[in-house]
Amino acid sequence: MPKPSKREDLLASALEVFHTRGFHGTGIKEIADAAGAPKGSFYNHFASKEECAVAALRRYGAEQRFDLLTDTSLPPLERIRRHFEFLRDGIAGRDFTRGCLVGNFATDVVDHSELIRSAVADGLGSWYELIAGALTEARRDGAVRADLDPQATAHFVVNAWEGTIIEARATRSAAPFDTFFQLIFDVVLR
Amino acid sequence: MPKPSKREDLLASALEVFHTRGFHGTGIKEIADAAGAPKGSFYNHFASKEECAVAALRRYGAEQRFDLLTDTSLPPLERIRRHFEFLRDGIAGRDFTRGCLVGNFATDVVDHSELIRSAVADGLGSWYELIAGALTEARRDGAVRADLDPQATAHFVVNAWEGTIIEARATRSAAPFDTFFQLIFDVVLR
Repeated sequence: MPKPSKREDLLASALEVFHTRGFHGTGIKEIADAAGAPKGSFYNHFASKEECAVAALRRYGAEQRFDLLTDTSLPPLERIRRHFEFLRDGIAGRDFTRGCLVGNFATDVVDHSELIRSAVADGLGSWYELIAGALTEARRDGAVRADLDPQATAHFVVNAWEGTIIEARATRSAAPFDTFFQLIFDVVLR
Repeated sequence: MPKPSKREDLLASALEVFHTRGFHGTGIKEIADAAGAPKGSFYNHFASKEECAVAALRRYGAEQRFDLLTDTSLPPLERIRRHFEFLRDGIAGRDFTRGCLVGNFATDVVDHSELIRSAVADGLGSWYELIAGALTEARRDGAVRADLDPQATAHFVVNAWEGTIIEARATRSAAPFDTFFQLIFDVVLR
């Protein structure tokens, strides 16, 4: 029976290496090396690099403060703002490298792995639902215009965020985040 | 003296392979094979895979109908709409695979190549300028609200587009494009 703690070590290393080097740039040996484990032990815990990538994506999701979006101690728009501020600070704190693992896998590997494509679609779907929930509350509270469509707007906000990261990475600048917050909160969610 | 036509063949192959497999998934041998050229001939035309990727990115840009954005026979917002419709049709016509080479390189390789990062930033910069030019005209014509900031809005529109592609690829669906057009033209550019 493989030790659970070794799986945790491998998963933490996998997340780090996938996030830094991308799916295609990551080898199983690098994941094992980063966890201080022999390469062969990888397959005691994961059936394939793809399956490990899906597990890494789930772990990544668990670290993105989605809990902020359902924190009823805050007004709904403030929850959305704080969630994206948290994501922004993470990317800025890594000098605008690495980006978002969801967006990375979506450009890097969805064409080549149905398993990962499905996990990326599920991850995005959960994110849209949480934002749509907060927007539905905001509309009920009169904090956004009455004709705002929470579902469509949630997709748009998240997608705009993912594209904002592209500019932030390419220009190594926080300015695209400022523009995102300005346009989303002053124009889209008015 | 290397034949220019062979460089063209290699460049066309490089664009195809980079777009299909990503930077890290592409080998020089695959580019040469796809062009029917010996691997060694690649270096008669390109100093490195990176330099070839930058040339492929420029060629890709030349095919994206940026000319629509300065077509003064059309109202400015219509130019923007037709440009993004052209991009949408290209992606939908490939069953939502491949995405946008600018966005792909921005997630796949900007952290690892300063040459490509700079080319991606330049490509985005030219795109923002063309959209900002059309938005400036639209504001002058009263087709958008008077307080719209053409520069910030241009960045936002292009970035939202790049993120929209992420959802379209992950879900293999045109619905994200519909949402993009709805939110951009009915809400952001009102």
